[in-house]
Amino acid sequence: MPTWEIYLEQNQSRFHAELLDFLRIPSISALPENAADVRRAAEWVAQRLTTAGIEHVQVLPTAGHPAVYGDWLHAPGKPTILIYGHFDTQPVDPLHLWDSPPFEPVVKDGRIYARGASDDKGNMFIPIVAVEALLQADGVLPVNVKFCFEGQEEIGSPQMPEFVAAHKDLLACDLVVSADGGQWSETEPAILLSLKGVCSLEISIKGANSDLHSGTYGGTIQNPIHALVRLLDSMRSPAGKILVEGFYDAVVELTEAQRVEIARVPFDEAEYLAELGLSEPFGEPGYTTRERAWVRPTLEVNGIWGGFQGQGVKTVLPNEAHAKITCRLVADQNPTEIVKLLTAHVEKHAPPGVTVEVLPLSMWGKPYSIPADHPGNEAARAVHLELYGREPYYNRTGGSIPICGLFLDHLQAYTVNFAFGLRDERAHAPNEFYRLSSFERGQRGYGKLLHRLGLV
Amino acid sequence: MPTWEIYLEQNQSRFHAELLDFLRIPSISALPENAADVRRAAEWVAQRLTTAGIEHVQVLPTAGHPAVYGDWLHAPGKPTILIYGHFDTQPVDPLHLWDSPPFEPVVKDGRIYARGASDDKGNMFIPIVAVEALLQADGVLPVNVKFCFEGQEEIGSPQMPEFVAAHKDLLACDLVVSADGGQWSETEPAILLSLKGVCSLEISIKGANSDLHSGTYGGTIQNPIHALVRLLDSMRSPAGKILVEGFYDAVVELTEAQRVEIARVPFDEAEYLAELGLSEPFGEPGYTTRERAWVRPTLEVNGIWGGFQGQGVKTVLPNEAHAKITCRLVADQNPTEIVKLLTAHVEKHAPPGVTVEVLPLSMWGKPYSIPADHPGNEAARAVHLELYGREPYYNRTGGSIPICGLFLDHLQAYTVNFAFGLRDERAHAPNEFYRLSSFERGQRGYGKLLHRLGLV
Repeated sequence: MPTWEIYLEQNQSRFHAELLDFLRIPSISALPENAADVRRAAEWVAQRLTTAGIEHVQVLPTAGHPAVYGDWLHAPGKPTILIYGHFDTQPVDPLHLWDSPPFEPVVKDGRIYARGASDDKGNMFIPIVAVEALLQADGVLPVNVKFCFEGQEEIGSPQMPEFVAAHKDLLACDLVVSADGGQWSETEPAILLSLKGVCSLEISIKGANSDLHSGTYGGTIQNPIHALVRLLDSMRSPAGKILVEGFYDAVVELTEAQRVEIARVPFDEAEYLAELGLSEPFGEPGYTTRERAWVRPTLEVNGIWGGFQGQGVKTVLPNEAHAKITCRLVADQNPTEIVKLLTAHVEKHAPPGVTVEVLPLSMWGKPYSIPADHPGNEAARAVHLELYGREPYYNRTGGSIPICGLFLDHLQAYTVNFAFGLRDERAHAPNEFYRLSSFERGQRGYGKLLHRLGLV
Repeated sequence: MPTWEIYLEQNQSRFHAELLDFLRIPSISALPENAADVRRAAEWVAQRLTTAGIEHVQVLPTAGHPAVYGDWLHAPGKPTILIYGHFDTQPVDPLHLWDSPPFEPVVKDGRIYARGASDDKGNMFIPIVAVEALLQADGVLPVNVKFCFEGQEEIGSPQMPEFVAAHKDLLACDLVVSADGGQWSETEPAILLSLKGVCSLEISIKGANSDLHSGTYGGTIQNPIHALVRLLDSMRSPAGKILVEGFYDAVVELTEAQRVEIARVPFDEAEYLAELGLSEPFGEPGYTTRERAWVRPTLEVNGIWGGFQGQGVKTVLPNEAHAKITCRLVADQNPTEIVKLLTAHVEKHAPPGVTVEVLPLSMWGKPYSIPADHPGNEAARAVHLELYGREPYYNRTGGSIPICGLFLDHLQAYTVNFAFGLRDERAHAPNEFYRLSSFERGQRGYGKLLHRLGLV
């Protein structure tokens, strides 16, 4: 029998082909019309776990998109590791900015271009093939392994709180390892210390019972668009501070040591801006760009619409206007509480002459953080030293993986982030891609990590 | 030979059928894909003028949609009356709110439902059939008559300034009578003393070179939607006063006598609001609802859009946001000057971190007003007394017919508004309709008016 590492090498082209198959499934969790595709992706994952030698594989229902579970529990006395990832993807619009169809993966210059390539299908497929290699080479795994893959991460895991609570025993573990995330660069590893929480809502403003002629009625009744811009503008100072009452109350201010730790991670602001085509940063006064991104809460309007959007002029006084908002949260902000504060703000500042409604949306997650010296992080650090030949950075992110907080709450298990996406891979944007080099390095990384976690 | 009034009665069902034909042409001037339909409507009008006995009928080109001219000039010593109207229509969206397809007219309970039925095809067809009746009955007209119909009123007549200037001799006249407008109610006539001017522009805000992940980038760069709402909100006080510097400078304040004259025209604010499904009016402090509608300038956002508008959540930090604005203007505001003031405001208040562009749109027109006791108004008043058995109200409107100002500038001729639309006919909105009773009354009205103008 070859070693597990040789097995990985020998089977790499098959793994590539399988990943392309996986990427062809348009498992967009946000769009109801793609629900069957999300389910198809779940079944693909279940099938692939079984092929890898995993037992008790099940597609488990939730009130929304299903999850996939499987385990291998034949390492008595060894810790139980729960490996997490997600098989759903973001939507693809604006479609016209893609160079190739988002669900027809293209391999070019060592990269796979497809929606979900980096976030998260490429990354979540890694531990499956790593475990297959270990089982094929050794017949056993160095630890007990459970897999839990979800199909609703990109919409904020609305049914996962209930799911994790309902399956506490099934998912019970000593440590979670998340295959959703990334490294610092192709040559520099990183250990993630915090993720932001998230909450989401839609504001709908209604005026008259019909669109009206802006000449005849203009100036005499409230225009829902004006009311909406007033309301949205009231939420943020011109300089970028959130003005929603109580918004910052639960934020734990940075210690000086933490600010120093953050400043130690390389960041070239000029390059950051140049890559975005911008000439200046913008954000909450009193913090660096990196601090704003990593440890300060945010409020962003994700979309706004109302009235005439066509070519030319339509002299309409529209009777509706809408906006979608997400906030990113840091410890100890509670997403449910923040939605309440935003709703109270909207009620307090509701402009006259219109009806204002706030609809909480499904994206919800608590902020999450893990001590830098947690044993799981120590194991990851040791693997990174082997893989990259250097110490990892200790970084944070403005992104959210709501399930980390859920695992901590319900399983009392921390989550070590161990995944191989890179920052430039356009997750959530057109022309998303994933590096084949990351795919391969990740497989070796998982093999080493499971061995190291088994040394306990 | 029957009298002209009996001729009208005898031919009414043919006129109805012809109007339905006219309404079937989707002559939406705002949409490039309907340009051929606007031209088709022009040709329909030219053909119909010829049938009516009008001479020198021509479809005249402009740099945009064409105009239609025709005349009958065999009344030496009598004044020359230029009759104006427009054969283009508004767009139809939101289409799903129509009870029947907008360009498949339906006659029901004495009303014709179709886009353009009231504004302005039903109204502009009236003087054509009235002149036909006069010519058929008497062989001559009591005045010299010219017709000038345009195909771009609903987009603000962008090429009509050049057109009117270039055809000063052809259009030369003593008085313009506009067949675009309305009466007070089915039983109460009105004489229109002023129309607002109009100008239009689009604001486009661009941020990064791509849509971005709101978690990764949120809080560190300017969000174009936040920048746009900031900018739009800066243009209007929460109470409804326009804050663009210099906006009100050229406004001629109302005299006390004018305020009294306006207050004399019946207005039931509770009913006005009830019809709109609203509980309160809203507008510039210090003025009544009627004054806001008739004699105060306005700034209305007609449309806004940016980012994700679909179902659910997309955690995007969008890289573009847009808004369309029209202002309605009163004497002596100049639309070109107001666009400059708005552009200066946008430049002065442009939020940091984004690129802001202002694009003037084609809707442009000067404010217009006519003395209450102008001889043309006196003639209209006498006809109204005959038609309705009562004195007209002297009203004003927040709407704009830019060509009135052009005729005054270039032909030194005032425009008497003499048309038969009614306020509830949903011009510019779904389910527009026109009353057959107005169509018939209008025909008698035009016959009488031309006779009366010939008494000079």
